[in-house]
Amino acid sequence: MARAISAAENDPPVVQAFLREHSQRLGRARIVGITGPPGAGKSTLTGCLAAELVNRGFSLGLLLVDPSSPFTGGAILGDRLRLPDIAQHPQVFVRSMSSRGSMGGLSKATSDAVKLLDAFGMDFVLIETVGTGQAETDIVSVADSVIVVAVPGLGDDIQALKAGILEIADLFVVNKADREGAEKTERELLHMLKMQPSSSGWTIPVIRTVATKNEGIGELANKLLAHYEFLRESGLLLRQRVARAEQELKDLLRSRMMQEFERLMGPALYRDLAQEIVAGEQSLYDTADKLWQQFLVRITQKGGSASD
Amino acid sequence: MARAISAAENDPPVVQAFLREHSQRLGRARIVGITGPPGAGKSTLTGCLAAELVNRGFSLGLLLVDPSSPFTGGAILGDRLRLPDIAQHPQVFVRSMSSRGSMGGLSKATSDAVKLLDAFGMDFVLIETVGTGQAETDIVSVADSVIVVAVPGLGDDIQALKAGILEIADLFVVNKADREGAEKTERELLHMLKMQPSSSGWTIPVIRTVATKNEGIGELANKLLAHYEFLRESGLLLRQRVARAEQELKDLLRSRMMQEFERLMGPALYRDLAQEIVAGEQSLYDTADKLWQQFLVRITQKGGSASD
Repeated sequence: MARAISAAENDPPVVQAFLREHSQRLGRARIVGITGPPGAGKSTLTGCLAAELVNRGFSLGLLLVDPSSPFTGGAILGDRLRLPDIAQHPQVFVRSMSSRGSMGGLSKATSDAVKLLDAFGMDFVLIETVGTGQAETDIVSVADSVIVVAVPGLGDDIQALKAGILEIADLFVVNKADREGAEKTERELLHMLKMQPSSSGWTIPVIRTVATKNEGIGELANKLLAHYEFLRESGLLLRQRVARAEQELKDLLRSRMMQEFERLMGPALYRDLAQEIVAGEQSLYDTADKLWQQFLVRITQKGGSASD
Repeated sequence: MARAISAAENDPPVVQAFLREHSQRLGRARIVGITGPPGAGKSTLTGCLAAELVNRGFSLGLLLVDPSSPFTGGAILGDRLRLPDIAQHPQVFVRSMSSRGSMGGLSKATSDAVKLLDAFGMDFVLIETVGTGQAETDIVSVADSVIVVAVPGLGDDIQALKAGILEIADLFVVNKADREGAEKTERELLHMLKMQPSSSGWTIPVIRTVATKNEGIGELANKLLAHYEFLRESGLLLRQRVARAEQELKDLLRSRMMQEFERLMGPALYRDLAQEIVAGEQSLYDTADKLWQQFLVRITQKGGSASD
């Protein structure tokens, strides 16, 4: 399995071939995203939650998505070492991945790794995203349930969480709840949820945990299972997954089209044309029109390739 | 001009027609992105910088990019009211835009609005992005110079800034520099810059400002002009702009291809196929292959459209 998931990063065609063959085995795993600001104790919490789920008899895969930022790499890899012994458990598979997505978000490799863990029969896939930015909100595009981890005492952090991250939570955790200000943080979250309740009919819970003492983890697991049941019974799980498949299909087609385009038109093309555009010799839109017409002529003459 | 920029949000073809016609007028404006965490005083700072540049004889356009998040909308619109009288100046054009980009980043409408302001002969276009997330780092794809605004006393905020935002700064501002902790924040930034110096040869400055008292704004303007000179003389400005045009060309082609695809294949297609994929009846990759082959057959039979 480790080799298969490395392949997701290094040899996508091998993974694609595998997933083509095992498409009927997909869709059984419950996919959980765990996100929040740096310093919230996400790694410890993720480790505890993984242990709790394993103790309840579930198998699981754990993906740690690192931002590729050279500034933060060191500190965050250090964090990883704090992950509990759970990684040693035979029912648990842990893998760190970089988040080198083309749009700054979760990479195709992460999404493929999730599918591999699903195909291998894992009951749960936990994805922990590190750092701030797009990876945190993009977790929605992969996960069935999203846990957003907040902590007391980070000052303006509830404020900082607001844009984008609050909206994606299916469950809130106030971790380090033995710290001063935990009640205040919980109250603020509950207040916000009251102002802007979930439109799906699911009541977003706020769960207090102290991951370092394994406190509150049982309740978190209960709520997580309850959320999955809610998704299944309400039909939302199916709708979310169809929407996800639709998006993946579009993404695949888009990259397939660009591949064919480069194959027929030559890769050096863009740079030359971009120089003409910057020099004011051509407009962007006219250039795009001309390229498209040329592509149509070539594809009609030569035909598309039958496969990759 | 106001109508033209509204059109960028509401009627892209009109804008494209205008930009097609005036492509020779593009590329003169200096495009400046201003970003940073909520509460850093970006609006006031942007207003002061705009006033300083106008006093030096430059014309400018000011784009305020709001995140579309319903949670934050209210508070941020309130912020806007603090913008100084600069908006009344005849040489200044101010416009608020939502950041409803398809990937959570800066929207095509924002990029078109920048181009319109450029075509209209503005010397500067200042783009202020609000909130955390992708819009902040995506500013790089539009701006020649990026100003990242930090403030003392936000606790872990330098830490929170790290992933993604620090890397994009051409200039750092420590705003509210009359507050306790300003020196510490400045020192931390300088330390980080020492550890990870800019690879371009530009020395990233850290400038202390108190925007509410208009302090430090002159120096900020000087450094901003110096950065533009550096970009021009080093050839980096041209390289950045060619890379940007290349990306825009690819984006246009990609959306053109998808348009043609939907035109020839019918829009309801994806949903039906996605349902089959989720049901395990088809693999994602096989489905994408089949769709591509069908597309090739149709495009060869019917031909592509000559224009939009």
